[in-house]
Amino acid sequence: MTGEGTNERKPVLAVTLGDPVGIGPEITAAVLAEAESAGLARGLAVGDAPVLRRAVDVLGLDVEVNAISSVADATFTPGILDVLDLGIVTMDLPWGKVDPAAGRASVEAIEVATRAALAGEVDAVVTSPINKEAIWAAGSKHLGHTEMLGELTGSDRFNTMFWVRGLRIFFATRHMSLRAALDAMTVDNIEHAIREAYTALRVFGTDEPRLAVAALNPHGGENGKFGDEEITAIRPAVQRALADELNVFGPVPADSVFHQGLQGRYDGVLSLYHDQGHIASKTVDFDGTVSVTVGLPILRTSVDHGTAFDIAGTGTASAGTMRAAFRAAAELAPYAPRLREAYPPAR
Amino acid sequence: MTGEGTNERKPVLAVTLGDPVGIGPEITAAVLAEAESAGLARGLAVGDAPVLRRAVDVLGLDVEVNAISSVADATFTPGILDVLDLGIVTMDLPWGKVDPAAGRASVEAIEVATRAALAGEVDAVVTSPINKEAIWAAGSKHLGHTEMLGELTGSDRFNTMFWVRGLRIFFATRHMSLRAALDAMTVDNIEHAIREAYTALRVFGTDEPRLAVAALNPHGGENGKFGDEEITAIRPAVQRALADELNVFGPVPADSVFHQGLQGRYDGVLSLYHDQGHIASKTVDFDGTVSVTVGLPILRTSVDHGTAFDIAGTGTASAGTMRAAFRAAAELAPYAPRLREAYPPAR
Repeated sequence: MTGEGTNERKPVLAVTLGDPVGIGPEITAAVLAEAESAGLARGLAVGDAPVLRRAVDVLGLDVEVNAISSVADATFTPGILDVLDLGIVTMDLPWGKVDPAAGRASVEAIEVATRAALAGEVDAVVTSPINKEAIWAAGSKHLGHTEMLGELTGSDRFNTMFWVRGLRIFFATRHMSLRAALDAMTVDNIEHAIREAYTALRVFGTDEPRLAVAALNPHGGENGKFGDEEITAIRPAVQRALADELNVFGPVPADSVFHQGLQGRYDGVLSLYHDQGHIASKTVDFDGTVSVTVGLPILRTSVDHGTAFDIAGTGTASAGTMRAAFRAAAELAPYAPRLREAYPPAR
Repeated sequence: MTGEGTNERKPVLAVTLGDPVGIGPEITAAVLAEAESAGLARGLAVGDAPVLRRAVDVLGLDVEVNAISSVADATFTPGILDVLDLGIVTMDLPWGKVDPAAGRASVEAIEVATRAALAGEVDAVVTSPINKEAIWAAGSKHLGHTEMLGELTGSDRFNTMFWVRGLRIFFATRHMSLRAALDAMTVDNIEHAIREAYTALRVFGTDEPRLAVAALNPHGGENGKFGDEEITAIRPAVQRALADELNVFGPVPADSVFHQGLQGRYDGVLSLYHDQGHIASKTVDFDGTVSVTVGLPILRTSVDHGTAFDIAGTGTASAGTMRAAFRAAAELAPYAPRLREAYPPAR
């Protein structure tokens, strides 16, 4: 019933399989096979066809895997899972065991998908989890997806935005100890994070964003009684942003700011350390927490969980976060051209 | 239709009005007037009758305020709000202004309610918010309710437990800067907090509690890569508890542990710093977060918000948290005798 024309307008999303022996292939197969997903976007997998086939078997899905060598060959047809075939993993690897070939396939899928996005062949990249040890065994030196994507696109502005129940959560610091995060609470760092978050909110279509900055200490420090970072760093950074006419609030005590944001009082919240925003979003909606990479010329969403080697191949992994990441990519795809303008590729 | 006998078995809850010029009187009046509350417990207010009357007027409630001088005189009758009258604030004070008389009434209400609980006249105390400046202006030296209750009951083991959607959240540290909380992450401190949390879970009826300890650093520190407190302090403390056959888990990354707890995997979660547990519980259910004081010989629940001087007297304050605190006290009242055994009054 749906004409070719309707289908044509749907965004094209490249979904990487992630580590072939993790849960990535299963959750990708599950989401790509759903009629609901097909209603939102035209999805294709990026990885090894035999790996996707094995995942389809694990789940007992009644779909056919169609190996293709270019995006142009994708059929985007119900009952068929198109996969941009890498030809790396051609035989069954043991589930849940770190494997250099699996690592190589993980890296290659990201590279292929990213190149397709940079070339405009796909509107967004959705990534499944990879295993650090596996990619290191395959010779990669990266810490994870985001650093890899930064290098592939020539960007050093990459950052993570969480999208949960309509609220966008940004991070001033992330993968460092809590003590190191405290040491990073300078006016300059926080001002920079405010500006980057503000830019991201605008790029994703909020013309006059309302951004709240979380406080660091209990009750926002109670005027210096429980810590002084609010006075020495956070407030001055907010003042600088306000002086530049950015619509910024805070510091707002962290046990209120996410609640208020979810109620619609703010478009975004700047979290000062990793767990601050992570606890908020994952406690309120674990499966609905989508990670969106900002600061790249391409759109990329991701699950924010790991490879779950312990349950890979059992068909029991929840595809909830992948579903949310796929949906988010479909919804944000119209902004992909603005990403390229805001964060132009370096080369 | 409800016979005297049924009514007799319902716990008696003393609800303090808190600061007379804050939102305490309104939220107390609202909850005590509800048929639903009356179905759970027999509630009476503790404060000044004129203050409660003014709150009833603000809300336009069709109830009568009945000033009494002892719990034995309470009528516990629908349409009547019994109030243990203090006789301190007898005329209208301006809403939302720090006032020594208001502070004195705040303190006195807590003392009267606590004495009634110690004497066994009431099963629990539910407290409305007080204003620190007001109680200090009235000569009190306490930081807040909990310290005051500790002194009144001769206990120094007082601690806060959050109760949200069935999960109990405990705190290893609380009202100190985040940096000071990091400095407090010693094996002894964490072991002590684990044991106190474990005891509280047992006192409140969980015979074989499953207690999870949150991690401090992102991803639980990733084996020391992002901070080493998991290795040097948290894990050794958990080991000590396990050696004593306590059913303790962790450290569990903080962005998973509360989610897992809410799913029922644990009975309680030990939060290492104030905001860790506060962000989790208040983001998932702001109005449903009840504070229960543990370590006292009496049962006390509380709202965990402030006096909201800016909206006091307008009738717009949400009574949601007070409703939850009242309900929690009614539900936990059967354990009040166990509290007295576990945490005997010092004198």
